[in-house]
Amino acid sequence: MTKDLSVTHPSVLYAVSPAASAPTRGGPVEPSSGTLTPLASGAIRVTGGFWHDLQRLNASTIIGHCLAWVDRVGWLGNFDRAADGSLGADHAGIEFVDSEVYKLLEAMAWEIGAADEGELADTYHDLVDRVAAAQDDDGYLHTSFGGPGQRARFSDLEWGHELYCFGHLLQAAVARLRSGHDDRLPAVARRLADLLVLEFGAAGRVAVCGHPEIEVALAEFGRATDTRAYIDLAATFVERRGHGLLAPVEYGQEYFQDDQPVRSSAVLHGHAVRAMYLAAGAVDVGVECLDEGLVKAVESQYVAALARRTYVTGGVGSHHRDEAFGDDFELPHDRAYAETCAAIGSVMVSWRLLLHSGEARFGDVIERTLLNAVLASPRDDGKAFFYSNTLHQRTPGLPPAEDATSPRAQSSMRAPWFDVSCCPTNVARTLASVHLYFATRTDNGFQIHQFGDFTATTDVGGEELTVAVASAYPFEGEVTLTITAAPSSPVEIAVRVPGWAAAGATWSVDGDGLAVALDDGYLRFTGIVSAGTQLHLSLPLAPRVVRPHPQIDDVRGQVVIERGPLVLALESIDLPDGIDTESVEIDLASPIESTPTGARVTLRRRMNRERPWPYDSASNADPGVGPTIVADLIPYARWANRGPSTMRVFLPMAPP
Amino acid sequence: MTKDLSVTHPSVLYAVSPAASAPTRGGPVEPSSGTLTPLASGAIRVTGGFWHDLQRLNASTIIGHCLAWVDRVGWLGNFDRAADGSLGADHAGIEFVDSEVYKLLEAMAWEIGAADEGELADTYHDLVDRVAAAQDDDGYLHTSFGGPGQRARFSDLEWGHELYCFGHLLQAAVARLRSGHDDRLPAVARRLADLLVLEFGAAGRVAVCGHPEIEVALAEFGRATDTRAYIDLAATFVERRGHGLLAPVEYGQEYFQDDQPVRSSAVLHGHAVRAMYLAAGAVDVGVECLDEGLVKAVESQYVAALARRTYVTGGVGSHHRDEAFGDDFELPHDRAYAETCAAIGSVMVSWRLLLHSGEARFGDVIERTLLNAVLASPRDDGKAFFYSNTLHQRTPGLPPAEDATSPRAQSSMRAPWFDVSCCPTNVARTLASVHLYFATRTDNGFQIHQFGDFTATTDVGGEELTVAVASAYPFEGEVTLTITAAPSSPVEIAVRVPGWAAAGATWSVDGDGLAVALDDGYLRFTGIVSAGTQLHLSLPLAPRVVRPHPQIDDVRGQVVIERGPLVLALESIDLPDGIDTESVEIDLASPIESTPTGARVTLRRRMNRERPWPYDSASNADPGVGPTIVADLIPYARWANRGPSTMRVFLPMAPP
Repeated sequence: MTKDLSVTHPSVLYAVSPAASAPTRGGPVEPSSGTLTPLASGAIRVTGGFWHDLQRLNASTIIGHCLAWVDRVGWLGNFDRAADGSLGADHAGIEFVDSEVYKLLEAMAWEIGAADEGELADTYHDLVDRVAAAQDDDGYLHTSFGGPGQRARFSDLEWGHELYCFGHLLQAAVARLRSGHDDRLPAVARRLADLLVLEFGAAGRVAVCGHPEIEVALAEFGRATDTRAYIDLAATFVERRGHGLLAPVEYGQEYFQDDQPVRSSAVLHGHAVRAMYLAAGAVDVGVECLDEGLVKAVESQYVAALARRTYVTGGVGSHHRDEAFGDDFELPHDRAYAETCAAIGSVMVSWRLLLHSGEARFGDVIERTLLNAVLASPRDDGKAFFYSNTLHQRTPGLPPAEDATSPRAQSSMRAPWFDVSCCPTNVARTLASVHLYFATRTDNGFQIHQFGDFTATTDVGGEELTVAVASAYPFEGEVTLTITAAPSSPVEIAVRVPGWAAAGATWSVDGDGLAVALDDGYLRFTGIVSAGTQLHLSLPLAPRVVRPHPQIDDVRGQVVIERGPLVLALESIDLPDGIDTESVEIDLASPIESTPTGARVTLRRRMNRERPWPYDSASNADPGVGPTIVADLIPYARWANRGPSTMRVFLPMAPP
Repeated sequence: MTKDLSVTHPSVLYAVSPAASAPTRGGPVEPSSGTLTPLASGAIRVTGGFWHDLQRLNASTIIGHCLAWVDRVGWLGNFDRAADGSLGADHAGIEFVDSEVYKLLEAMAWEIGAADEGELADTYHDLVDRVAAAQDDDGYLHTSFGGPGQRARFSDLEWGHELYCFGHLLQAAVARLRSGHDDRLPAVARRLADLLVLEFGAAGRVAVCGHPEIEVALAEFGRATDTRAYIDLAATFVERRGHGLLAPVEYGQEYFQDDQPVRSSAVLHGHAVRAMYLAAGAVDVGVECLDEGLVKAVESQYVAALARRTYVTGGVGSHHRDEAFGDDFELPHDRAYAETCAAIGSVMVSWRLLLHSGEARFGDVIERTLLNAVLASPRDDGKAFFYSNTLHQRTPGLPPAEDATSPRAQSSMRAPWFDVSCCPTNVARTLASVHLYFATRTDNGFQIHQFGDFTATTDVGGEELTVAVASAYPFEGEVTLTITAAPSSPVEIAVRVPGWAAAGATWSVDGDGLAVALDDGYLRFTGIVSAGTQLHLSLPLAPRVVRPHPQIDDVRGQVVIERGPLVLALESIDLPDGIDTESVEIDLASPIESTPTGARVTLRRRMNRERPWPYDSASNADPGVGPTIVADLIPYARWANRGPSTMRVFLPMAPP
């Protein structure tokens, strides 16, 4: 229920538009041009299976869990206190906790969709009202700055995260607009964005925010509201960065990508979330300004980061201290930072590059990163999350208290909430909109990028084309596409074949095998289809032995086992009593078998002699290698769901 | 020149003792009991060579460099402003910068020694006067707390470092006392220590400091002033720790060792410098309280840390974020933190355990840690320092500005000064007193623990025994001990044989070879000697291939080359143009030759294919291994003295 806040909060004077009026348009990203076009948010529907379970978990548990926490720790209350004037320096939480509420609003908007009814919608409108009530007359809206007893607006752009928070508000408004509702939150967002144009535009202060996010948000809000000034301001922010406008901090200007202009960097660097959000915004700006040079510059930085600064899960960020990328190939697995939000940022960048270029490799990255990095965060019950995602856990951690916030870098067990809690809400908004990354359209057909149970609808020459995709992916490799509504003209159906499957995929139409001729990573079927036409893709899911680049010193002499799109891990719980993950090596001479979700491998026990000094001239090969052990590897993303454990993704190879 | 400050600072009422009165007694540590007894500070004299050069560098450059910086950045000025009442919240530097001045006073006291004359002594007395002038009537002395506009005394024990600073003041006073002067600084220290007994003793507040240091300092100051109350307070602080008296911080209570009682911990953990300082203090307390259980508990924690949590250089501390130990065998070489101060702390602990137990293994650790970790810090010219000591530098860093402070964690080049600048002053005080770790005495003789050019004097049955040690160690393995004054009764001369030399050492007396029978790591000669008697030890310095424990995943498949006591490294400057440290592997089938300070090895070039994705099913062994390269390895501690470079300590092994 929306309330008329103009009575209790006379400063809130704008009108609330009627709900559910506009047609739905696009997902989180709707470029004005590009090789591929995203589908409208109502045009893809998850119908069951893997993704359905996750979206149900999100709707039934994760969003509510996060809502309860932002309430409990006072981050939501900040808005009420800002509205009634009682908030001062005693603001609850770190400076940027407004953003957690906004990410939840975004998640809820995607979840509510066009319908705008039910309990979640009621909660949503209540929250929006409370946020709106905190907005100043001139459009400014932040609970940490500008109020009585607080620091002045824009007085700490390095660390204050004001524009970062605004960005998440704008993205929440985009989700609402794209779900077909131009109502209160978009109105709040417009007033805020208008203020930003005044404050930071051509006539305003020459500055940027320490944490990129406003760029990608303004670009999209500009698209969603068809307001060029917002896109221009996004472009201005992108161009301003890299000229030392931010005061130096301990981690160096590279921490917030202010060390060199966006378009002249060679590789993503600095704080990984900041780098990804900025890259996403820069692609958007490049697309909207027809600045192919900018898009290509970011693409090349991103591709370089994939080749040299990315974990096998798709996670990024090597350092705990500054949450940053490391040097090329500096990828420690002990305490890999690999922040959940950085993985989400990588999906954001990949999706934009996929839309722009149409290249399947970006769909590959989305698949790997979603399944192995983003989905590692939520616990099976949806009530705890990884912030950082280590790839090697040497000691079983103590479970964090379920009723307290945790430091963000705790990695051995998922925690219900963090002092800085960006990841849980980021997971929530990503899961609520994840289906929008599954397919795109062109004038004459579909591109299927991800697999599962869902339907996608578009029109070809004014006639409906609907495809129902069915697959038990990522655990099984069979994917069936059934045309349920067909136009009379020829269509093209393109299906991404993951890079790892390029050699073994088979494909058929209505039972007739087709030649597998990959066209830039896609299998393409072109022709007249009719309702009932079935395309069938079969991907080989046999476990694969994957080796690291020799410059990744940290995992030299080790391998990781992948099965289909899943990176597998060895968790101590799956080893016999008395044997731990630190004393086994994988026997690659023995067969590796598939299990329903992972693989069964043969391990050899290595006796770890305790030495007074761990470096000596004796051979590395300790005597007394024990009997073989057969153990199951599980999907990495699901580790730490069965109590305290140790875990490793890369396994040392036993001597042949 | 000492000035009578009682005129200008009427609150300073204590008398200044006459200088150079007391006989010199002991070095930084003088336990009341133990297997070995340290020599008095005047009883060991460096006569030339390696250590002489370093101590000259310290006296001529490092101390002055640090003095200039504490002056320039206002840390010295804080004392003047505290004294004249003009200091408030605008205190220069972080809370604990007083300690840098105190560590310099300690360095200067050791350097001045008994003589107490010359320019350095004048500077010293001036500094002491300025420090003394800032002392409050009741003995409190801190420039960050308790003054007008400042936080109250002891209001932030977690982060305030008040007692940490006091500890360094007490250690500076110990150096002065042990150099034979009971004058102004010891008087200041007594008043401060007395205040601490009141504030934190049995009748005071039950608390500890977030950064251990007061424990080791109070114990020694108690010994040096023969004041039991100080030792008892040290014991109280040791026993109080580990009971959660400190409020939780982001890094957990383990960060400051407040997670479990000192005597019940299994291994050193948490912030590495804190852990080492606490361990040193706990050994002192255990010794003075005849609490063998406490000493053995700490010894066992330290020995466990050596076996599982120490880098090959002797450096400790795996994490940048919390400057802490990691899990067992979690020893990342990229960005190894290995803080210089933690290495110094390890030398402090080893020295105490050596004195207590008489076990040569602790002398081995001192040798390794001094030569490879502590001495890595100062640049050849003594004007820049490493704070953290990485073992793998992948990209040449930019040289830090010579006229600005640097963030502490910059590792690619040494910096002249840091925002937190604990390491340079710690190097200064360590170098000034390093000779005191070279030898100890028992009732009937000497134990020689380190090698170089120095003389040591003691008495046996009332008669003088003096030994002149001569060696070009660590670069050459010949060590000659010449008796220059001999008592009439039999003496025992024990010489530590480093663990790595146990198999190849030879030894002779006046040219006659003796059987090499190691007794707990020592060669012992017992008998009547006369002036002119020569003992000669020959240590085999041929380069050795050293392999890591298999649980140190980070360096699996790699080796380090050691030569004598030195850990060697490959620096890019020593490679042909166009070949970098990241594309070579060591060919262990080729001979490894000695060079004057390092080793010459054969490397094979590995072609590093750039792959779009660095994990794949192809073999790790890239084709096209290039021609062999002969390159020189240098002592790790001397890297980064020839301009920006890359460097690695561990080298991957080329396939056989």
